[in-house]
Amino acid sequence: MKALTYHGPGQKSLDDHTKPVIVAPTDAIVKITKTTICGTDLHIMKGDVPTCTPGRILGHEGVGVIETVGAAVSAFKPGDHVLISCISACGKCIYCRKNMYSHCTTGGWILGNSIDGTQAEFVRIPYADNSLYPIPAGADEEALVMLSDILPTGFECGVLNGRVQPGSIVAIVGAGPIGLAALLTAQFFSPAELIMIDLDENRLDIAKRFGATATVNSRDGKAVATIMAMTEGRGVDTVIEAVGIPATFELCEALVGPGGVIANIGVHGTQVDLHLEHLWDRNITITTRLVDTVSTPMLLNVLRSNKIDPKLLITHHFTLDKIIDAYETFGHAAKSHALKVIISA
Amino acid sequence: MKALTYHGPGQKSLDDHTKPVIVAPTDAIVKITKTTICGTDLHIMKGDVPTCTPGRILGHEGVGVIETVGAAVSAFKPGDHVLISCISACGKCIYCRKNMYSHCTTGGWILGNSIDGTQAEFVRIPYADNSLYPIPAGADEEALVMLSDILPTGFECGVLNGRVQPGSIVAIVGAGPIGLAALLTAQFFSPAELIMIDLDENRLDIAKRFGATATVNSRDGKAVATIMAMTEGRGVDTVIEAVGIPATFELCEALVGPGGVIANIGVHGTQVDLHLEHLWDRNITITTRLVDTVSTPMLLNVLRSNKIDPKLLITHHFTLDKIIDAYETFGHAAKSHALKVIISA
Amino acid sequence: MKALTYHGPGQKSLDDHTKPVIVAPTDAIVKITKTTICGTDLHIMKGDVPTCTPGRILGHEGVGVIETVGAAVSAFKPGDHVLISCISACGKCIYCRKNMYSHCTTGGWILGNSIDGTQAEFVRIPYADNSLYPIPAGADEEALVMLSDILPTGFECGVLNGRVQPGSIVAIVGAGPIGLAALLTAQFFSPAELIMIDLDENRLDIAKRFGATATVNSRDGKAVATIMAMTEGRGVDTVIEAVGIPATFELCEALVGPGGVIANIGVHGTQVDLHLEHLWDRNITITTRLVDTVSTPMLLNVLRSNKIDPKLLITHHFTLDKIIDAYETFGHAAKSHALKVIISA
Amino acid sequence: MKALTYHGPGQKSLDDHTKPVIVAPTDAIVKITKTTICGTDLHIMKGDVPTCTPGRILGHEGVGVIETVGAAVSAFKPGDHVLISCISACGKCIYCRKNMYSHCTTGGWILGNSIDGTQAEFVRIPYADNSLYPIPAGADEEALVMLSDILPTGFECGVLNGRVQPGSIVAIVGAGPIGLAALLTAQFFSPAELIMIDLDENRLDIAKRFGATATVNSRDGKAVATIMAMTEGRGVDTVIEAVGIPATFELCEALVGPGGVIANIGVHGTQVDLHLEHLWDRNITITTRLVDTVSTPMLLNVLRSNKIDPKLLITHHFTLDKIIDAYETFGHAAKSHALKVIISA
Repeated sequence: MKALTYHGPGQKSLDDHTKPVIVAPTDAIVKITKTTICGTDLHIMKGDVPTCTPGRILGHEGVGVIETVGAAVSAFKPGDHVLISCISACGKCIYCRKNMYSHCTTGGWILGNSIDGTQAEFVRIPYADNSLYPIPAGADEEALVMLSDILPTGFECGVLNGRVQPGSIVAIVGAGPIGLAALLTAQFFSPAELIMIDLDENRLDIAKRFGATATVNSRDGKAVATIMAMTEGRGVDTVIEAVGIPATFELCEALVGPGGVIANIGVHGTQVDLHLEHLWDRNITITTRLVDTVSTPMLLNVLRSNKIDPKLLITHHFTLDKIIDAYETFGHAAKSHALKVIISA
Repeated sequence: MKALTYHGPGQKSLDDHTKPVIVAPTDAIVKITKTTICGTDLHIMKGDVPTCTPGRILGHEGVGVIETVGAAVSAFKPGDHVLISCISACGKCIYCRKNMYSHCTTGGWILGNSIDGTQAEFVRIPYADNSLYPIPAGADEEALVMLSDILPTGFECGVLNGRVQPGSIVAIVGAGPIGLAALLTAQFFSPAELIMIDLDENRLDIAKRFGATATVNSRDGKAVATIMAMTEGRGVDTVIEAVGIPATFELCEALVGPGGVIANIGVHGTQVDLHLEHLWDRNITITTRLVDTVSTPMLLNVLRSNKIDPKLLITHHFTLDKIIDAYETFGHAAKSHALKVIISA
Repeated sequence: MKALTYHGPGQKSLDDHTKPVIVAPTDAIVKITKTTICGTDLHIMKGDVPTCTPGRILGHEGVGVIETVGAAVSAFKPGDHVLISCISACGKCIYCRKNMYSHCTTGGWILGNSIDGTQAEFVRIPYADNSLYPIPAGADEEALVMLSDILPTGFECGVLNGRVQPGSIVAIVGAGPIGLAALLTAQFFSPAELIMIDLDENRLDIAKRFGATATVNSRDGKAVATIMAMTEGRGVDTVIEAVGIPATFELCEALVGPGGVIANIGVHGTQVDLHLEHLWDRNITITTRLVDTVSTPMLLNVLRSNKIDPKLLITHHFTLDKIIDAYETFGHAAKSHALKVIISA
Repeated sequence: MKALTYHGPGQKSLDDHTKPVIVAPTDAIVKITKTTICGTDLHIMKGDVPTCTPGRILGHEGVGVIETVGAAVSAFKPGDHVLISCISACGKCIYCRKNMYSHCTTGGWILGNSIDGTQAEFVRIPYADNSLYPIPAGADEEALVMLSDILPTGFECGVLNGRVQPGSIVAIVGAGPIGLAALLTAQFFSPAELIMIDLDENRLDIAKRFGATATVNSRDGKAVATIMAMTEGRGVDTVIEAVGIPATFELCEALVGPGGVIANIGVHGTQVDLHLEHLWDRNITITTRLVDTVSTPMLLNVLRSNKIDPKLLITHHFTLDKIIDAYETFGHAAKSHALKVIISA
């Protein structure tokens, strides 16, 4: 079968691989119909993810059709259409029992990282009963690709951790795909203000279309002053960090009001300055999280009721044989204006 | 001044009263601009509320303008436009400190009950700093009358107590004004299904317009079967009781699914049968509540962001001198199709 | 092997049975070392549990040693000492994912009910990885038998659902084994008052020794007046129902204060009167629950730290060949003063 | 009257002052019977608290007797024995309504800071109804001085924010008075492990006597390795920072396990390094808080039930005329072994 292979920093190609087979009784083999590329895949390509070694098939998102299942799989049978979660969950370890699938002692984020992933014609899914979701008849499968990772990530790490509430004031720092996913899912809780902050006017325009009540270009260094003026000097209730660098995290520290929350989604490569000399008495909360995908059933329900249109995030389409082009487009988003790209296998 | 006076069961009239004066340093006198009639006022007129004695001016809802304030009032000054809460809160007793203003040891629901109320040209508001809310410049004051009681009641007793969640399945039993207020405010949390149940087709049509995803007329006795079919036999996550009689409460018992909540709003005059022989092992929660109006600041924020249009609930307008007609219209809602009536003073 | 068999209402005997074998890859066979009898077993013997049919081996509590495991069991191997949960959890259905194992679509309370149970030399445990717990080296295995059912039931259905808090006032109606389990585990949260109510002076004496701060014999009909006097007329914050009859549930309704909780543990056979005419505006919560045993890991940790001595609940010891005598002793608790009986296999 | 006056960094004296008088109708004048010194008072003496200007009477803790009350005070009358909260709460601003009294827009921590405090014969208490608590007859008033600040601070900022749970593993960094207050109050929730970390063997010995299950002297730089060994490499569930310097905060970052909480109590003067490169995917929570004293009623209830002995924290006694000596003793705690000193006025 064809699959996108990581060959070390900066090196990737579409190669022939042996089709995967059932290894454990809880496995399923899924024929991929649609997959996508994540910002994390770009991190891997830069060599930032040491658990991902050369030879690995990348990808941790997608939808497909069950090909075969192991003896202990009871929820799925060949032919079932399924959504693949980016997180593999054994369902029985100390962390899975706490609904913290991201830290599953034998799972977590392993697909396209420490085991072969979804940018391929077929993929082996461990713990299939806990890591796949049935696709309801008639659902738009392309839209569902957004439920593998980006929507639960924006929702769990940003919106739920950020305790977004009806009537609250929310700021999101970073209007990339993940910040936009937080923006879309924050609206489930009807905040009064949803302020998007970015440096890129194109992305701020998109944010407006996606429901931001205000946008702030932080290029001029006045974002804090602007937002303090918008909040009677109190700061915001929830600020979601969706970039992952020190400057944006420190912006969050400056924006959060007394009793507020900084919900970090960004993947950080270095330490940041935490200004406890200002924050120690401000009654704030800071959260970090790798997505657990525990909200997937809830998100499927919300989707079913048309409260959200995940396809807003999809800007480009490719076939698997053009996946190198897809990486090129996704990797130069400022120029291509790409958000998420769909790859049909 | 003119005021609507309760003279005992079935007896009311618009009379001349002495204008109220400041009694305690925490009082304010408010000139009423708009008020309304509540279902509870009809209960009083039937003689069901023994704390309300003949001679009482009725009414616990409204907006107005501050006329004078006591020496300890710091948040308001004459000329301020204010929203009147149906609940008076001292802000310092054991219950107020728990945000349970409904049980304030010297307040709670006293307006138009144990002290004179708002269906008048002027009203004395005890604990003004904790019981009035400033009206933002430019706000639609008529819409705000819905925030005195009906919207916080639907939201706190029904939606918050019912733990409505994104993607959840909600049923509301009773499409009167209070059930409709629950319907409007439940949408703050983006449930997947909002099923309205009533006997009156006109009200079910209104519910559809207000956002119900399905309506069920329970006249044929098949409401439970219908809703079980809609929920794969599991029942609903949240069922809100907005009627207040045994039959509707028992309907809620039959509809609630494992792990679900029955949130009672209805004012009950008699005991109901609780079928613990079926429910003891169903992991359900039943809640009761008199509105605390703690959500009023949150609701004002939501309103400001246009997430809800409270004026949908307003069907008729009267002036204070026609308040007897207003009672007539409101009291015969099945015929008049009245939801809430606005009375301008 | 020997096992206690239910032969229909009032009929039981210790019989020879075929040793159980692995049926599904997620099964384990456990050699029982110690088991016990539950009040529910007496309900079965009365014919109150239709899912339990003649021929069934009873029992859903115990500790033992793993004999064999199925191919998909990864957390246990032969020779491991294990605690058996009364609830079987698949770990992957809609309810297990919500930590509501009691409603597992293919599990729940099935042991000694719809499948053979633990009052035997060997038992087959479905979903072993999610339904067994490793026994730490050096633990007192007899004490751990109390963690199969009675302690998690008292804790989850009574204490957690009852929201027991530091400084709060808690009343428990019923000083049987389950009420005493609630009494022991309520102390994890340091309530200020723990009032035990019963008709039996012996059990009230035991409650005092187990940590009750006050005991009330309700025989004289003055329990409500007594407890109102103890709480400045406000009623209690949490009242735990641990009997399961209308009179005791109605006692709870009379005792609960504004904002309080009635946490039902009792197994009810008939409906009860819910006095909503008094309670509709009292801001109370009523909960029901079949134990989920989600707190078992937490309880094992608490046990390890000696914060509780479960052996206080053990009053009698028998061997498996004397299990009929054990039923006799447990079934006449008023006379034998039995709480829990240990049966060594 | 006599009072301890701050005259600028390093300058203080016991001086004659005019007795305070009622300024606002919500004020009370309290005759101090017992007060104490806080670590924050030492910060003021170093010049670290710019809101506190020369001439200020210090002190924000104490018990006393009501001398006079303003016209709007309804909960107290002359002669009442009262506990003084370190936080003044108006009970009606946006923050007080959220139970965030620390950020009261006209109150908060003002006593002995921006208005005159309690290290005096008399003190004026603003918002008396919301900032004083009645002392139950027969209570040990000296013990209650610990409820003005240190116990609610340890409990709210450390224990509640830290989400201490039955069976959880808790580490406290810093065994000074505030860390010990967290240690005492953490036991309300029955954690399995309570590990105290400090550099001072004397204070670690005290921690053992106060309920620590283990103590770790971090002088050898092996604290992280030691505690990881104690927790199977997972880290702790809750780590409470009770020092306020970068090194101790970074120790907390190294100790917190996946899903855990760092609850900061320490007063920080500089920024700290937040290692998001390690923590971004660890699902942790960091909280900061200035005590709100919302738990004071709860703590009074717990105290009444003898679940805690606050007098353990009291090591020395002085009279007001020897308050300079008291500062000397408290300020050299390493030598004097002082925890809290009581000053009788």
